[in-house]
Amino acid sequence: MAHTIHDMIDRFAMIGATPGGGVRRLTGSTEDGVVRELFVTEAQARGAEIHIDRIGNTFATFRLAPGSDTAVLTGSHLDSQPTGGRFDGALGVIASLLAAESVAERLKQSGAVARHNLTVVNWTNEEGARYQPSLTGSSVFIGTMPLDRALAMQDRNGIKLADELDRIGFRGTEDWPLRPVHYLELHVEQGGRLEAEEIEIGLVHESWSTAKLTIAFLGEPSHTGPTPMPKRRDAMRAAAFAITRFHEVMDEAARDRLFHWSAARIVVEPDSPNVVASRVTVWFEIRNRDEATVRDMGQRFLAAIRPEVARQQIGLEMVAEEVRPRIRLDAAGLKVLGAAAQSLGKTTLDMETITGHDALAVQSGMPGTLFFVPSVGGLSHNEAEFTKPADIENGLAVMEAALWQMVLRPEGERLPNGSVDPLPEPTV
Amino acid sequence: MAHTIHDMIDRFAMIGATPGGGVRRLTGSTEDGVVRELFVTEAQARGAEIHIDRIGNTFATFRLAPGSDTAVLTGSHLDSQPTGGRFDGALGVIASLLAAESVAERLKQSGAVARHNLTVVNWTNEEGARYQPSLTGSSVFIGTMPLDRALAMQDRNGIKLADELDRIGFRGTEDWPLRPVHYLELHVEQGGRLEAEEIEIGLVHESWSTAKLTIAFLGEPSHTGPTPMPKRRDAMRAAAFAITRFHEVMDEAARDRLFHWSAARIVVEPDSPNVVASRVTVWFEIRNRDEATVRDMGQRFLAAIRPEVARQQIGLEMVAEEVRPRIRLDAAGLKVLGAAAQSLGKTTLDMETITGHDALAVQSGMPGTLFFVPSVGGLSHNEAEFTKPADIENGLAVMEAALWQMVLRPEGERLPNGSVDPLPEPTV
Repeated sequence: MAHTIHDMIDRFAMIGATPGGGVRRLTGSTEDGVVRELFVTEAQARGAEIHIDRIGNTFATFRLAPGSDTAVLTGSHLDSQPTGGRFDGALGVIASLLAAESVAERLKQSGAVARHNLTVVNWTNEEGARYQPSLTGSSVFIGTMPLDRALAMQDRNGIKLADELDRIGFRGTEDWPLRPVHYLELHVEQGGRLEAEEIEIGLVHESWSTAKLTIAFLGEPSHTGPTPMPKRRDAMRAAAFAITRFHEVMDEAARDRLFHWSAARIVVEPDSPNVVASRVTVWFEIRNRDEATVRDMGQRFLAAIRPEVARQQIGLEMVAEEVRPRIRLDAAGLKVLGAAAQSLGKTTLDMETITGHDALAVQSGMPGTLFFVPSVGGLSHNEAEFTKPADIENGLAVMEAALWQMVLRPEGERLPNGSVDPLPEPTV
Repeated sequence: MAHTIHDMIDRFAMIGATPGGGVRRLTGSTEDGVVRELFVTEAQARGAEIHIDRIGNTFATFRLAPGSDTAVLTGSHLDSQPTGGRFDGALGVIASLLAAESVAERLKQSGAVARHNLTVVNWTNEEGARYQPSLTGSSVFIGTMPLDRALAMQDRNGIKLADELDRIGFRGTEDWPLRPVHYLELHVEQGGRLEAEEIEIGLVHESWSTAKLTIAFLGEPSHTGPTPMPKRRDAMRAAAFAITRFHEVMDEAARDRLFHWSAARIVVEPDSPNVVASRVTVWFEIRNRDEATVRDMGQRFLAAIRPEVARQQIGLEMVAEEVRPRIRLDAAGLKVLGAAAQSLGKTTLDMETITGHDALAVQSGMPGTLFFVPSVGGLSHNEAEFTKPADIENGLAVMEAALWQMVLRPEGERLPNGSVDPLPEPTV
């Protein structure tokens, strides 16, 4: 089995493989289509039944409790960043599939009776690299994002997600016919804490809050050559100023509190070296544990740029303003997971996640549990991202043990959601 | 005739028409293919013979002097900026075609004997919006840009110019079989001087010099969420700083001398809101009459950003460094053109061009003459760019008169190139 998961990871990583050892599987791309097909093939070969919903989420169900309409749901995502790592997302899907196969096998051999079915899911567009916002499939599934809005999202070239899903054959028409009782997701850490503290399994109790401000700077197109300088209304100049000021404002704020922040994506129109930019859109993100704090910093940033942007006669348009709240994960699931890790003799650490995951997106509709295995050097969204074989095997073993418990437990036995104590505030 | 040119401009402007009244005909696009076809059709209907060379330049030849291997060449470009004006480029091609038709007609009726043939050319990729550098077709034609390099240019999505020319059917295999004795180009002014001074025809004596610095900022990809701030090497942050500093340095320098400058295009890799940018490429341009001055400013700018960029642990790569020299246009051609305008009672102004034109690109290999008609408000590279009907008719009439002289004159009669006096230095 340990042998199998490494082979399987290697096979999945061949699809969209990059020269740097990572993968490029942007949502809706041909590579995304191919990796989805592989997932379907591998799942069907193990006896799973496939459902593809309207946003392309792909469900592979093992009918462990044929008389029941409930299921434990487990999975992650097979899409990637443009130069992404081979474990980010894929590890969770592959481990779920192999763990589900083992659980099904063990049920058969032991004669134990499952109360729930077991479904492995590959969510559409977790990454949000080509299409924003991210966590699309899980958000549509749980009802926090309208299907129409998700399908209408456009990439940089104006290509709609709906059309790309059609093209790769993954714009489904079915609903997954079961009712989820729990969601379980394994992911690589995307930080260096587990490695530094030599811990095998990270149990995620809470997430940080993130403010995502997508701001367009509005100027006027003109010729970069003859147009007199005082006549230019240069949206690129204003955007560059705003990014620079953003980092200054955040640097200042980060002296007192722990923030992460970024301005990583920019779209310039009309995108010619010889036209003064008329519209520049920048994706700003501010992260902190506390939702009120990220909201406040967003306002402070806007206040800091408004006067100079106005002086340059550039307009500001808030294209999207999304605040992802701090989320506390289900306590009962963490208990099951902690017990599973303990039974296998694995060391655990209670931790937070700074970034978003599908397990957070579905939390509003069902209890979800997220756990991490270490990633070397904490490298993430990088082709060199790597997780050691032993850590992968630990993740798979804990997942098997946890899923075994989850499919056997009655539904009502879980603690009320959100009953764990918050973690202490990290120090800067 | 006056009626004809407006109709013809309207017809060409329907291809790639934008909602704002402009055109979008990026080089190698389907629209570029369609407008090229229209040019070929219109030229053939007027009795011209078509040759398409290896970079897609399209030559429509009127055999006015069948025994001669020489030709007067006239034209401009049919490609546009992403949101370009309907006259920029197209006016020159259409006026050349109609003027050539008139000259051919007049020869037939008058019995005068032409010494040269007359060829209308549509140059490939004058604009440089989708593919850089600009002035591609004319530069390849004259030998200052290697054909292989031009064909291998890639757009933002990695699509090669060669493949796009193939796709639209304009990657030719022929050489234009004639030898040019002169090049004549009509263009809209792209500035407001003719309109402000109420002059009908601008005679271009000289060009400004331009330094084009394409600089890549090199960081490291990482996750915008969990990656600790001190570990990030954010190429976008450094690029935004550099653009901001660029404008400060240029603002300062422009207190003493007249400069135009821009940083209009940016490409960010890997282009995801959730990946700290690993490579950001920015197209900087510095324009002044004097070549040494633009070179010097380029160095001052680099010196101004290096320390901070290094402090951020970001690498700098000079992707392309091109200095377009100040060019003095052929004196004899200007004399012919001035006389033509005078004979028609049109007012003229000796002027400079701040931006590049195919007439400048071919100047190293043949005498070239460039003249302007006014553009309302000096608007350029903007969908609202507009030239009044009377000004268009003036341009066409002057072109006809000048081409008539040029096809009749013996080749050796022109003054040595570059013999005009330079214009006085403009004041700030």
